[in-house]
Amino acid sequence: MKKVGVAILGLGVVGGGTYRILLEHREFYQRTQGLDLTVESVLEPDEGKIAALGIDRAIVASNIAEVVCNPDVQIIVECIGGEGVARDYVLAALYAGKTVVTSNKLLYAKHSDELERAARQHHAGLQLEASCMGGVPIVRTLLNGLQANVVGSMMGIVNGTTNYILSKMTEEGAAYEEALAQARQLGYAEADPESDLEGFDSVYKLSILASLAFHTKVPADRILREGLSKVSKDAIGCAKQLGYVIKLLAVGKQTKQGIEVRVHPAFVPKEHPLAGVGGCYNAIFLHGDSVGDVMLYGEGAGALPTGSAMVSDIIYAANHYENISSSRISVEEKPKLVTDFCSAYFLRLELRDAAEGLSKVTAQFAKRGISVKKLSRVGADGKRILLVTEEVQESVLFGALEKLRESGIAETDMRLRAVS
Amino acid sequence: MKKVGVAILGLGVVGGGTYRILLEHREFYQRTQGLDLTVESVLEPDEGKIAALGIDRAIVASNIAEVVCNPDVQIIVECIGGEGVARDYVLAALYAGKTVVTSNKLLYAKHSDELERAARQHHAGLQLEASCMGGVPIVRTLLNGLQANVVGSMMGIVNGTTNYILSKMTEEGAAYEEALAQARQLGYAEADPESDLEGFDSVYKLSILASLAFHTKVPADRILREGLSKVSKDAIGCAKQLGYVIKLLAVGKQTKQGIEVRVHPAFVPKEHPLAGVGGCYNAIFLHGDSVGDVMLYGEGAGALPTGSAMVSDIIYAANHYENISSSRISVEEKPKLVTDFCSAYFLRLELRDAAEGLSKVTAQFAKRGISVKKLSRVGADGKRILLVTEEVQESVLFGALEKLRESGIAETDMRLRAVS
Repeated sequence: MKKVGVAILGLGVVGGGTYRILLEHREFYQRTQGLDLTVESVLEPDEGKIAALGIDRAIVASNIAEVVCNPDVQIIVECIGGEGVARDYVLAALYAGKTVVTSNKLLYAKHSDELERAARQHHAGLQLEASCMGGVPIVRTLLNGLQANVVGSMMGIVNGTTNYILSKMTEEGAAYEEALAQARQLGYAEADPESDLEGFDSVYKLSILASLAFHTKVPADRILREGLSKVSKDAIGCAKQLGYVIKLLAVGKQTKQGIEVRVHPAFVPKEHPLAGVGGCYNAIFLHGDSVGDVMLYGEGAGALPTGSAMVSDIIYAANHYENISSSRISVEEKPKLVTDFCSAYFLRLELRDAAEGLSKVTAQFAKRGISVKKLSRVGADGKRILLVTEEVQESVLFGALEKLRESGIAETDMRLRAVS
Repeated sequence: MKKVGVAILGLGVVGGGTYRILLEHREFYQRTQGLDLTVESVLEPDEGKIAALGIDRAIVASNIAEVVCNPDVQIIVECIGGEGVARDYVLAALYAGKTVVTSNKLLYAKHSDELERAARQHHAGLQLEASCMGGVPIVRTLLNGLQANVVGSMMGIVNGTTNYILSKMTEEGAAYEEALAQARQLGYAEADPESDLEGFDSVYKLSILASLAFHTKVPADRILREGLSKVSKDAIGCAKQLGYVIKLLAVGKQTKQGIEVRVHPAFVPKEHPLAGVGGCYNAIFLHGDSVGDVMLYGEGAGALPTGSAMVSDIIYAANHYENISSSRISVEEKPKLVTDFCSAYFLRLELRDAAEGLSKVTAQFAKRGISVKKLSRVGADGKRILLVTEEVQESVLFGALEKLRESGIAETDMRLRAVS
């Protein structure tokens, strides 16, 4: 039986979950994988966390050098988070030729070039399934399951906190603050939830997933980011009325024009497979030129789902010699990023004139080739209309709306992207 | 650049799709995978198929020996189907130390022991993603994405033909024969659709998926099989009334009592992620002890989706030296298979007495610990009830129904398993 020693850096939620899974499944992995996986070393400054997991003091390292120089350790699991200490430790591990398994989306999104280079130079493995969407095996799928395909598009619900909040607002009519408070109570939202709510977390994940899918480094800071602040109770009501739900989507597209990457709330038709993804679940819907539409769905966070991704990566690395530089992201080629997106749109318009206004709007739209997919007139005076367009170049749509405003035909008082 | 030669045996739907994908993506795989994949040999008796694909006569082999002895061929793709010639050819390839990539579910389900043994002995790879669920990367996910988990259960819609027929019956109220005729017209149903309709196709796939998930060989002939013949328009109406849809499910469970494997139509609650899987799409919903619920969804058949699985396996095999005996199925251990299943049930009962009957039924159920989850009285005379139970040992439920019949309280006139 192959014996593989694991070290865990950081014993927070994910590190603790990874430790527990390894401990409880040792015999299972011996039997089913032919691997004896043991935790040989941990690095964690918080004595309380070590005690809570019942970890033998003998395997507690006092510094990173002790971990990377331990000859019994072949795989180092990084669960510290952030880009300070975590980056130093991951580089130290790779320099020592150890395989690194990480859940650190921020670190990989920002420093993948440096990390992949270090891994290649020192013949070390680098595995990152746990960095995106918790237990959903999307990284492995992009690398090893759908690699025959040119991926044309991906749309993901990749953040559980915001999906929980939007689900509560949609299903129970909760206000944003109320839903956020509930998410906090259930431990779905961090003490400082800004990274989730404002879309930063989704941006890092999209940076990684788009880079893997499109085989070119898509920098996080080039991704359009809109958080939940645009989503009012009112917007949720409009969506319902038209047969949509609002989801925070991470969207990546690859067309002849270039690559589009954006994170924003969007109207999703009720019949779309992503519309049914509720609570803190995550899902990603993608289109490959050969495979067609594929969706993966599962728990996007938490000790055990993310721990499952960690340990699956550990087993993969232990069973595959070729786990070096497996990401297949070209760093030489700079991607051509498009910012004049092509998207369907939900619009709420206030007409000046109830009788004539609508035909003037549709005439303006027709002139610019903007098709209306759904339309609903609301309110007692007949002046307010809700509509969803087909896909349109954003600059063209915005031009039309500006024209409507200037010529006094209609004011746009709500505007959100939609999935067509 | 690594040069890898591929041979394709059989140029039917899947073989032709695989050929086209390889041809059209050659430059793409050079760039993104560092692989130069070329088709060096094909074996196909039908001249018409060779001509239709525009294949150079120089690479057409006249017999299998020519293919397996070709030093330029490293990977042999089997798209012949069945267990006659296909088995001989696959064994010949493995004996020659060539990696085999196959879409042949029947062959692997029936002969995996022999094939895996041959692969191990001759250091050959054996890849089978395309054998189950077309483009849905479930095999890779079980082997490399969720292997940290003890899989407790899986439920899949693994046959597109039957799902298309059931969707037509549900959505459009079509009769079975009508829906089948449409499926035939669209090429979703084979000339002889018995293997699909009677559940044989699903049984082979479940045999493979359950073997991979539970790490023990689950023989196809030990799987309970019920086809679509039990599903009337009437049954679909009952499902709708109670908030369910009927799907042909492949179910595998692993409990302390043993392994349950069964293919049958089932009531699926409308809110369940599987309920929304329409048309010829496939999906599999599984539960791992760490990861929780995971679902994969995509096109379950067709030249390009299945070709995508084939080519992804080719790339995987070309990039991984360790593709030998990767299935992790124990053949030494015989699985303990349970046949007294535990399942929720839909029942339609005809009460003798409208006034007293229902309380007598629920009293009988309560005595045996059978809980009723949903109940609806239908019909003018109040004698007919539709109900769905919670999960119950089938022998216990059948005993209760027999008792109701014997004592003249109620007759069961429809009975189908349900997902709770």
